[in-house]
Amino acid sequence: MSKDPLVIFTPSGKRGHFPVGTPVLTAARQLGVDLDSVCGGRGICSKCQITPSYGAFPKHGVTVREGALSDWNAVEQRYDDKRGLKPGRRLGCQAQVQGDIVIDVPPESQVHRQVVRKAASARAIVMDPATRLYFVEVEEPDMHSPTGDLERLERALKTQWEIPEIRADLSLLAKLQPTLRKGNWRVTVALHRDHTGAAPRVTEIWPGLHEGGLYGLAIDLGSTTIAAHLTDLDTGAVVASSGLMNPQIRFGEDLMSRVSYAMMNPGGDAEMTTAVRAALNELTREIAREAGIDATLIVETVFVCNPVMHHLLLGLDPVELGQAPFALATSDSLTLPARDLDLDAMNPRAQVYVLPCIAGHVGADAAAVALSEEPGKSDDLVLIVDVGTNAELLLGDKRRVLACSSPTGPAFEGAQISSGQRAAPGAIERVQIDPVTKEPRFQVIGCELWSDEQGFDAATAATGITGICGSGIIEAVAELRVAGLLDPSGLIGSAEQTGTPRCVPEGRTHAYLLHDASAEGGPRITVTQGDIRAIQLAKSALYAGARLLMDEMGVDKVDRVVLAGAFGAHISTKHAMVLGMIPDAPLAKVTSAGNAAGTGARIALCNIAARAEIERVVREITKVETAIEPRFQEHFVAANAIPHATDPFPELSRVVTLPQVSFNTGGGDGAGGGRRRRRRG
Amino acid sequence: MSKDPLVIFTPSGKRGHFPVGTPVLTAARQLGVDLDSVCGGRGICSKCQITPSYGAFPKHGVTVREGALSDWNAVEQRYDDKRGLKPGRRLGCQAQVQGDIVIDVPPESQVHRQVVRKAASARAIVMDPATRLYFVEVEEPDMHSPTGDLERLERALKTQWEIPEIRADLSLLAKLQPTLRKGNWRVTVALHRDHTGAAPRVTEIWPGLHEGGLYGLAIDLGSTTIAAHLTDLDTGAVVASSGLMNPQIRFGEDLMSRVSYAMMNPGGDAEMTTAVRAALNELTREIAREAGIDATLIVETVFVCNPVMHHLLLGLDPVELGQAPFALATSDSLTLPARDLDLDAMNPRAQVYVLPCIAGHVGADAAAVALSEEPGKSDDLVLIVDVGTNAELLLGDKRRVLACSSPTGPAFEGAQISSGQRAAPGAIERVQIDPVTKEPRFQVIGCELWSDEQGFDAATAATGITGICGSGIIEAVAELRVAGLLDPSGLIGSAEQTGTPRCVPEGRTHAYLLHDASAEGGPRITVTQGDIRAIQLAKSALYAGARLLMDEMGVDKVDRVVLAGAFGAHISTKHAMVLGMIPDAPLAKVTSAGNAAGTGARIALCNIAARAEIERVVREITKVETAIEPRFQEHFVAANAIPHATDPFPELSRVVTLPQVSFNTGGGDGAGGGRRRRRRG
Repeated sequence: MSKDPLVIFTPSGKRGHFPVGTPVLTAARQLGVDLDSVCGGRGICSKCQITPSYGAFPKHGVTVREGALSDWNAVEQRYDDKRGLKPGRRLGCQAQVQGDIVIDVPPESQVHRQVVRKAASARAIVMDPATRLYFVEVEEPDMHSPTGDLERLERALKTQWEIPEIRADLSLLAKLQPTLRKGNWRVTVALHRDHTGAAPRVTEIWPGLHEGGLYGLAIDLGSTTIAAHLTDLDTGAVVASSGLMNPQIRFGEDLMSRVSYAMMNPGGDAEMTTAVRAALNELTREIAREAGIDATLIVETVFVCNPVMHHLLLGLDPVELGQAPFALATSDSLTLPARDLDLDAMNPRAQVYVLPCIAGHVGADAAAVALSEEPGKSDDLVLIVDVGTNAELLLGDKRRVLACSSPTGPAFEGAQISSGQRAAPGAIERVQIDPVTKEPRFQVIGCELWSDEQGFDAATAATGITGICGSGIIEAVAELRVAGLLDPSGLIGSAEQTGTPRCVPEGRTHAYLLHDASAEGGPRITVTQGDIRAIQLAKSALYAGARLLMDEMGVDKVDRVVLAGAFGAHISTKHAMVLGMIPDAPLAKVTSAGNAAGTGARIALCNIAARAEIERVVREITKVETAIEPRFQEHFVAANAIPHATDPFPELSRVVTLPQVSFNTGGGDGAGGGRRRRRRG
Repeated sequence: MSKDPLVIFTPSGKRGHFPVGTPVLTAARQLGVDLDSVCGGRGICSKCQITPSYGAFPKHGVTVREGALSDWNAVEQRYDDKRGLKPGRRLGCQAQVQGDIVIDVPPESQVHRQVVRKAASARAIVMDPATRLYFVEVEEPDMHSPTGDLERLERALKTQWEIPEIRADLSLLAKLQPTLRKGNWRVTVALHRDHTGAAPRVTEIWPGLHEGGLYGLAIDLGSTTIAAHLTDLDTGAVVASSGLMNPQIRFGEDLMSRVSYAMMNPGGDAEMTTAVRAALNELTREIAREAGIDATLIVETVFVCNPVMHHLLLGLDPVELGQAPFALATSDSLTLPARDLDLDAMNPRAQVYVLPCIAGHVGADAAAVALSEEPGKSDDLVLIVDVGTNAELLLGDKRRVLACSSPTGPAFEGAQISSGQRAAPGAIERVQIDPVTKEPRFQVIGCELWSDEQGFDAATAATGITGICGSGIIEAVAELRVAGLLDPSGLIGSAEQTGTPRCVPEGRTHAYLLHDASAEGGPRITVTQGDIRAIQLAKSALYAGARLLMDEMGVDKVDRVVLAGAFGAHISTKHAMVLGMIPDAPLAKVTSAGNAAGTGARIALCNIAARAEIERVVREITKVETAIEPRFQEHFVAANAIPHATDPFPELSRVVTLPQVSFNTGGGDGAGGGRRRRRRG
């Protein structure tokens, strides 16, 4: 047996014998222990901090004595003076093995540290971004061995970091020579690895050790809003989040209107491309300002988006996406320079990764949801619904995953609703209707109080009550149904039929008066018959898509439902089920995943292996086309009714038995002869 | 033994048995016979033309009977009607094997056809350009199998051409969809292979079969002139050549003045980069216009240039090249998009290849000379001299090749000469001085007559006699020496000393009057003492460089000398040797290679394997640095004299014994007491 000291690393448990005098970092590397280092053991980056443990470790069968590591040295002292080391910490590159030792690698010293995601259900992200920093000492040029500076940098990376080959753009080459000389031949480079295995590309170079960090943007480019998360590529922390409206809205609210705009207006696609790229530059500058970082430290950006946004971002005419067979110009993922997208607010050599599209109507956003929610790893059958202007649906489990998209339109986002508005302060987002009195109460965004609680008027004085947003209209429709003010076909009853003056005539139909501030010059917010129809169309499309996937899968129920998207985070799952938006499932099995597409983007930003993974997963997902499937129409028509809510909803405690109402809406006085049952109890 | 018919291809001699009905193209492919096809055997590109031979072939042991190939078919008839087939020709994809057959593949049907270079000594170029055309039929999109158009194009290339993977820029993606539809899913793509083995890149796409050809530019980017050869990438033919002055001349005549300009003027390097790129765009447009082709058919460009031009082309500050250790930003070859160099006159996705540099003073132009002249494959020891504003020298044989550069300055190009001018009509390019009468005769560019021949005045009336160019001044100096008007130290004798009134006083020295039209208001062209000194400095630098290489190689003579460059093509080798520009060698062993750097560029353009070859060769060339080598100075000083020409020049028939002259040039009356021997006989 070796007489060399035994070195045991925790938490990995990796162990080995090393000669006296071996630096801890060297031992860690030889054992494959995940211990970080940017400076390559030169005692300047402090990434390799470790904590030695002393005493008896019966579990490991060793006793660690004082002196098992070399003494605290001048390099450590200098670092401690300058930056401070936590008590008990040593620098792994300085501390040398002198005897048996147990060494803990704290999480922040691990290269592949885990970042816990917010959503409780989700796995942690293992940090392994495409772009990493490397500190190197480059040989000085020699007239007698006249290789170029780039070639000597390459050689330094090869000998010091075992990176066999690099690539560099002209713009990097242009700053290479002054930077090497400014850094006195010691520089830090940011290398971007392409997950296809091509030689890494030098994104940036700094003189000496770069300590300013590296950042990436995860961008969820939606039809309506663009959301960006600025992520520290070292820690994985989201250091700032920002969003803005997609300026393409002025060319069309929904995707198909934008495709039409491109078809009808020569150069219209280029106009929309220019608009969204300008917005992305604005967003980049804003988020960097917010986080207080230099925007050129943003070296990577990951995009998720639907196919039409995908094409318009890339400068591709989306016209083929407007007609069957909805052929994408390209469905595979893309890795390309940010400057090819005119993204000039970030590092000039930043790299962009665009997730693959699943099909002409199921985009990189759905792929990102699949990456985040992993239906293909689920033991039970999960339906994932990402509601936007188009809804993307994924249904599957370990055996098989299906995907489709469904044209819900923008009603769920508050558009095409008479008093609709986007989710913003002042918008009604929660609604309750008393089944007895038929009186409403509601909450508006920006105020915790219900409208019938004391102080509500004062609390909402600043924002006012401006309209009703997507989640509000869904709750309102469901509550109207539960309160017996709406029949299964979706008709609003008259005041006579329902017994409440809030059911007011509107043309040949009726509307429900939710809020009336018209006397004070404020808005009069109603839910009209047209609103009900818009919601019915949207929810039928969503439901029909889900049913189509279930047919294809050969099932008539799902084990659980995940609601994704900003909308999914705000919607009341019980109201969604009352409305029949989603197939029946135990309410406890209906969860919200938050912005799963954005999370998928963040995973692809923080972990390069996730890119290969989602590319593989997307190839295995079976696409189901809704647009040409006759059963979609059948399901759509059948889903038009607002069903009877039944017992799976004990939480709807106010509802003992659901009302069975049906109104006959003649053109005349409204006193129709329709069957009408009033709520019992 | 197989009873299938025997198919023998000539000139390759490849043979094999194939079932009756096998298309000749298929047989050729299976045997690895070099038979071209762009359309993949669809009978539309006509690239696979072959000539069947009939009768007895005792050498091959077969007799070919009528009917050994299937009958002339409708596809061939259609092609013949439309374009015409040479008599006896068949289309290899249509003609099917029916019996034993001998098939000749004519040169123009070979993929890797050879292009014979002009220079007699040189090998042929084997055509294998980086960019090639492929005709494919792409699967139409299917809603149920929703891959993108790019992915289906990739699949078509894989199944139809065995190309496993492709890459495409966004700008190509943007035209992919309309082109596929316009071509009804049949398209021709130009694929650019990177010789490093990366996936080929789609440079261009055309609907249907593209028959407009593909072109490349081989560009020799000199300090003074930019020369371009437009080359047909199919045949290798140079279809147009054009050149223009390097506009950077206004920033400095020679390389070091341009480096100084960059050092002294912030942004000066960018100014020079902009200027040269604009000139390249102009040159591209001009050469395309001259050849009558669409400039977007230019899909490749190869550059050779010296290190300073290299950096200024690439947008790199050349400041490091102005001082030891003359560190290049990068010495390796570069493959990059033309748009990165703002070369927007050619195809927007054209690719650029820049040959590697050998060292900070020995550039890609020297590498190109090495590629063209192949010193490393020479059995005898060859000295290759490429004379420009800087001279590049290569010395070597199979065992070892050395390189250096020598700062000759622009005197050899007619600059810094009192009556000097660039080689252009009207410039004196040939000079003879009668050793007896001391009278000159000369030829000017643009006229075949000597100045003392009848009709000379009339023939040169249009251009006039405007000055003296590089080759003219070299001949003049050598002739002055041979005529005894110049002593070995380079002093011009007085009229008294030389006995000719053409030796006129000029300040404290003398000048030789070559041509005097001042009476008619024309120029008075003299060779002054200053001119002699400038030529002495230039030739000493050149000679010292060669000697330094010889020292390094441990030899005191070379077997042969190759003069490269435009200058090398015009210079009289015997005069160069009288002058002592180059080491002694038998006159028959001193040859001109023409523009070897340009030829090297053309080789790299036409043959992708040549790129890997020159990269390997450059790594093996030993660089000798002149700037810091004390022996260079010693050789330089020693080479200042103009030596006694001796017997190796019997061609100089007028000279029986060379004069040994030496003048004493006092400030006074010129009647010095110097030793003076007059020519005998």
